Amino acid sequence: MTVPLLEDERIDDLDRNGYRIIQNKKSFCFGMDAVLLSAFTKARAEDRIIDLGTGTGIIPILLKARTGSSDITGLEIQPQSADMAGRSVALNGLENDIHIVEGDIKNVKELWPRGSFSVVTSNPPYIKPSGGLTNPSEAKAIARHEIMCTFDDVAAAAAYLLGDKGSFFLVHRPNRLVEIFETLKKHHLEPKRLKLVHSFIDSPATMFLLEACKDSGSYMTVEKPLIIYKEKDVYTEEIHEIYGF
Amino acid sequence: MTVPLLEDERIDDLDRNGYRIIQNKKSFCFGMDAVLLSAFTKARAEDRIIDLGTGTGIIPILLKARTGSSDITGLEIQPQSADMAGRSVALNGLENDIHIVEGDIKNVKELWPRGSFSVVTSNPPYIKPSGGLTNPSEAKAIARHEIMCTFDDVAAAAAYLLGDKGSFFLVHRPNRLVEIFETLKKHHLEPKRLKLVHSFIDSPATMFLLEACKDSGSYMTVEKPLIIYKEKDVYTEEIHEIYGF
Repeated sequence: MTVPLLEDERIDDLDRNGYRIIQNKKSFCFGMDAVLLSAFTKARAEDRIIDLGTGTGIIPILLKARTGSSDITGLEIQPQSADMAGRSVALNGLENDIHIVEGDIKNVKELWPRGSFSVVTSNPPYIKPSGGLTNPSEAKAIARHEIMCTFDDVAAAAAYLLGDKGSFFLVHRPNRLVEIFETLKKHHLEPKRLKLVHSFIDSPATMFLLEACKDSGSYMTVEKPLIIYKEKDVYTEEIHEIYGF
Repeated sequence: MTVPLLEDERIDDLDRNGYRIIQNKKSFCFGMDAVLLSAFTKARAEDRIIDLGTGTGIIPILLKARTGSSDITGLEIQPQSADMAGRSVALNGLENDIHIVEGDIKNVKELWPRGSFSVVTSNPPYIKPSGGLTNPSEAKAIARHEIMCTFDDVAAAAAYLLGDKGSFFLVHRPNRLVEIFETLKKHHLEPKRLKLVHSFIDSPATMFLLEACKDSGSYMTVEKPLIIYKEKDVYTEEIHEIYGF
């Protein structure tokens, strides 16, 4: 399968199932957070999965490889990103398994009936509009800053889209852990499983991975920490396993 | 200094400043959680410190050694524990530095004016009355189960006792992390610094240490994890440092 590439786009190998992905070095390339979220997500072949703010489409493609589900949707508000993600799906011949939808997280009620999915994933923008300089490239800015949606919007969409006992898997920054818990609880999504990600064993956490379950009782498990580097520039075995699986 | 010992009591060395502590093997002996909380607590010689539910008085004695503060109070509801803690204070000649008060956490408004302390610590009961078998020994049961007070009572007392920008340091179980955050927020105590404690690097967290600041903005730091054992029965260097300091 060949697909057209636009200016500044390149094709990268994903090292699993022979899958590849189109990225644009001037807009936004996927990061380790998306790969770790895909590995953290518990889903099966029969799950109906949606990724909110899918960007390049990396999470749907990795979840296709990991779960075998043939009912994966990626929702993306930016037309150029949605178009590029759609071409990556076509590049891998996954048009029957992954559906890229151009649309707004704040608008899911007009796109799907309530409870349409069993698994929701999201690698949302981490930074509040007031916090830090906004990236001059619009696509990067929208991916990183809460310009088009807040975390409250993402949680509201997840709560609406999930069926009974469905799970929402997300990655976010530790500095917002308390607020993320509060927002999820407000939308009846109970935080159940937390994993902190540290660059080194002796450094503060830089990310967290979280599973929240719809209308579930309160009981949290904090999993073993995920350490990225065993020494400078040398990944831990766990990272090699996640990337290699 | 010699003090009377009651039946089943023994004196243990604390390996710091020559301090010792009286414990009763049939009621409740302090655990590693109290030692880790003392090490996690940031306090200076000029701080006015209170430990809520002080039990044996271990936390005031360790904080005396670590901070040099001469204004440390331990509040304990059980008469026998309060008496034993008072005798441990006398045993170490610390009557001018540590004040053991027999009283109820739910009753602090009648004991001290609002904002009387700059640092509050607590190693509260972890288990809800409905959760698990209640220990047949009353003193152990009260120390471990929320029989005499709930976490909401502890947080309300901490919020009342702390002055402006004061800090509350606590240890608790990860399964209640979400609820603890919610309860602290309700009392305007903002969770700011979190440390997960894991028995091994590859096992789930068994405890967390948390600093919450009164009337503070929302910004969390998750510190490097604290690992207890590097292999079975062999403590990590960090645990040796905390016990040895």
